[in-house]
Amino acid sequence: MVKTLLVVGGGAGGMAAASKAKRTNPELRVVVLEAKNHVSHAPCGLPFFLAGYFDDPNMLVHYGPEVFKKRGIDVLLRTKATKIDFSGRIVYAIDQREKEYEFEYDYLVLAMGAKPRRLHIDGEDLDCVYYIRHIDDGIPIKQKLKKAENIVLIGAGYINVELAEAFIHQQKKVTMITRGDRILSKLDPDMSEIVEKDMIAKKVNIRKNEHVVGCEGSNNELRKVITDKDEYKAEIAIVGIGIEPNTDIVNGSKIGFGIRRTIKTNEKMETNIENVYAVGDLAETKNIVTGKPSWFPLAHVANKMGRTAGSNIGGVDMKFFGAADTTFVKFFETAVAQTGLSTKQAQSENFEVKSVKIEALNKPRYYPDASKVYIKLIYDSKTRKLLGGQAIGGQGVDGKINVVAAALYAGLRVEEIFQLDLGYSPPFSPVWDPLIVASSVSMRDLIRKK
Amino acid sequence: MVKTLLVVGGGAGGMAAASKAKRTNPELRVVVLEAKNHVSHAPCGLPFFLAGYFDDPNMLVHYGPEVFKKRGIDVLLRTKATKIDFSGRIVYAIDQREKEYEFEYDYLVLAMGAKPRRLHIDGEDLDCVYYIRHIDDGIPIKQKLKKAENIVLIGAGYINVELAEAFIHQQKKVTMITRGDRILSKLDPDMSEIVEKDMIAKKVNIRKNEHVVGCEGSNNELRKVITDKDEYKAEIAIVGIGIEPNTDIVNGSKIGFGIRRTIKTNEKMETNIENVYAVGDLAETKNIVTGKPSWFPLAHVANKMGRTAGSNIGGVDMKFFGAADTTFVKFFETAVAQTGLSTKQAQSENFEVKSVKIEALNKPRYYPDASKVYIKLIYDSKTRKLLGGQAIGGQGVDGKINVVAAALYAGLRVEEIFQLDLGYSPPFSPVWDPLIVASSVSMRDLIRKK
Repeated sequence: MVKTLLVVGGGAGGMAAASKAKRTNPELRVVVLEAKNHVSHAPCGLPFFLAGYFDDPNMLVHYGPEVFKKRGIDVLLRTKATKIDFSGRIVYAIDQREKEYEFEYDYLVLAMGAKPRRLHIDGEDLDCVYYIRHIDDGIPIKQKLKKAENIVLIGAGYINVELAEAFIHQQKKVTMITRGDRILSKLDPDMSEIVEKDMIAKKVNIRKNEHVVGCEGSNNELRKVITDKDEYKAEIAIVGIGIEPNTDIVNGSKIGFGIRRTIKTNEKMETNIENVYAVGDLAETKNIVTGKPSWFPLAHVANKMGRTAGSNIGGVDMKFFGAADTTFVKFFETAVAQTGLSTKQAQSENFEVKSVKIEALNKPRYYPDASKVYIKLIYDSKTRKLLGGQAIGGQGVDGKINVVAAALYAGLRVEEIFQLDLGYSPPFSPVWDPLIVASSVSMRDLIRKK
Repeated sequence: MVKTLLVVGGGAGGMAAASKAKRTNPELRVVVLEAKNHVSHAPCGLPFFLAGYFDDPNMLVHYGPEVFKKRGIDVLLRTKATKIDFSGRIVYAIDQREKEYEFEYDYLVLAMGAKPRRLHIDGEDLDCVYYIRHIDDGIPIKQKLKKAENIVLIGAGYINVELAEAFIHQQKKVTMITRGDRILSKLDPDMSEIVEKDMIAKKVNIRKNEHVVGCEGSNNELRKVITDKDEYKAEIAIVGIGIEPNTDIVNGSKIGFGIRRTIKTNEKMETNIENVYAVGDLAETKNIVTGKPSWFPLAHVANKMGRTAGSNIGGVDMKFFGAADTTFVKFFETAVAQTGLSTKQAQSENFEVKSVKIEALNKPRYYPDASKVYIKLIYDSKTRKLLGGQAIGGQGVDGKINVVAAALYAGLRVEEIFQLDLGYSPPFSPVWDPLIVASSVSMRDLIRKK
């Protein structure tokens, strides 16, 4: 008898699971329910769409439903799951016209993703601000952008840094407001400060330790954003203050939850309910540095989770061991990359945290576009094991941090980075690769101990 | 009593050893003998100097002797070691005016580097060709370049590919002649072919399976280079057909030799003679993939060897575990990177060689400068261990191959690359990093085996 895999949510994780399951076991019937208008979309591309680096929003969709149709996967758009009966193996859903459906399944993949955290001002959301999460969110902003001059970004995380570039690139006046005392708080303060200076130099008005309390405007036209300290002219305001797992539909069910209301999974991406998997921004995974349960709502992690679940459902064992929180972001020429634990995170995990930070050029000084790079390696001074790495600079910092991510996976000690045969050629790196230098400097500890 | 470290040869390895030894033990007297005019030079920068990317040849010298003087290191330029008495611990040398000197030592570092392989036409070298090895070699070529129109490059290795870019950039007509049947023979043929096509597209006249037999000219003015098949107009001809360890001075001594006339060393860079170390392009090291003795005459390897020897001489134990032959080269927009064993090398080491090759974009297709990238991973199908990696494409291939180099050091299996938390952000990579894709594809074997 033909078995059915039902996937709830057609984002990165869900579509990866659907595709991999179908490819692994072509006998499987695979159905995807997606509440919105697109599957396999790439909301990470929105800042670049808004920057005007490209104008066709269809570029943000990797594959349309017709491609999945060809792969033998049924995609039902604008079909929102409303309830799951795990005992009866039924998912209830409604379409746009509120028509009700029931879907039976043998295997279920939960992939509803995450939703933006709301501002929650006086118990109510502001209706004058945008949240960017889905590609459909981008089009009205791009429309409005033509006439807007002042833009307020609320929150100082990765996406808002990308949006700041997008809007500065469009000659807009950009204000970034954060409740925190710095931007990009995943980085160590001495590193985030470098990015902050670059942003200020490019005229981003960064306001720290400020709380948005309201906004003013009329007829759907925003005029200003008001904080506890000041007010800012704005025709567009965008909130990016984090996300939370979109797990309302399984609240109160027998499914097991993990940290921060994620759904608990094992390395096969199985939940506590037989034949039910969870992948993507709503699923828990492991931090490969600490070995502890963690939440990494990142597209590339979602993809790997989806592929792992799909392979297992298709009948070929596969495990996903976890992630290291590797994140990249670019603000004009300043590339920022980090992986593993920050100093603060490492301290809260009770490591004996030490770090080494170096400043170097990313290429020999005679090479035309040589530029400065900062590398920070964070390690445990007891075991000498690497715990994390951060890099800021021009071309190549992403590659350096990927090397650190590989080292974290392999459990290397900080001085072993010196032993890695990182290549050298003037267009790519100086003869002493900055990572090798950082590792060398870390060895000074060992000498002093003698 | 003050002990003396004598370093013979002031290139990358020698100066790294001198600096590290002095820093580790400031009591040490450190003397460097250098036969030519510069220490701490960067001949790897010559192609870019000749390309006109910069014009001051002093940029090719990292530090002048005065910097080393400040560090407490005596540098004697134009002082050529002529004989070593290992039993008496004396190095004999002559200066420019053939004046003789004797230097006693407690520790000795041999760092004379390598010398270019000669053409050996009819038992004699052509005197109408240039060899590029030392920064002094660059200046006369740059002079001559002003009036030259046709340039012949003999050999098709990394440096000549860089020189081809340099001269094409200067609007010269470039012919590259090789005895082999392809360029960049360290790469697998399906990979080197990609680079070759790019070079041909940029009008490099590549002549394969041809032997240079002579040249014509008069008054030090070259007119043509003659091969066994044809002849080529040329005002400048440059030979880059490899190098060999510069170990003449210790021939016949009791020092132990390794493969290809390198000096045999252990992981501390000690030779078989007490207190005598060898570093840089004349020293043997280990291939971290095979564990076997190997020769990697590369500047970044020389630096690491020097630092290791210097640390040990200074009294702090340090080991250098070897290298993986990681090499980068760029030809205009085409970046080429490889590490570990090629398919052919792996076969000759009796691995059960398999490989996976993928073509992908280096960024999402909507990102303005997304470009094609080819990734090849070579592995042993019995143990599944990675043996090598090759990448060609635009921005980022160096970083990918550095990740593979880290994986080789850690002894990872090809499917473990999938587990590495390589970062994703549109300006840096597609959501499925090409390395992750290659690893995924390699897993198809495992499924088929079932």
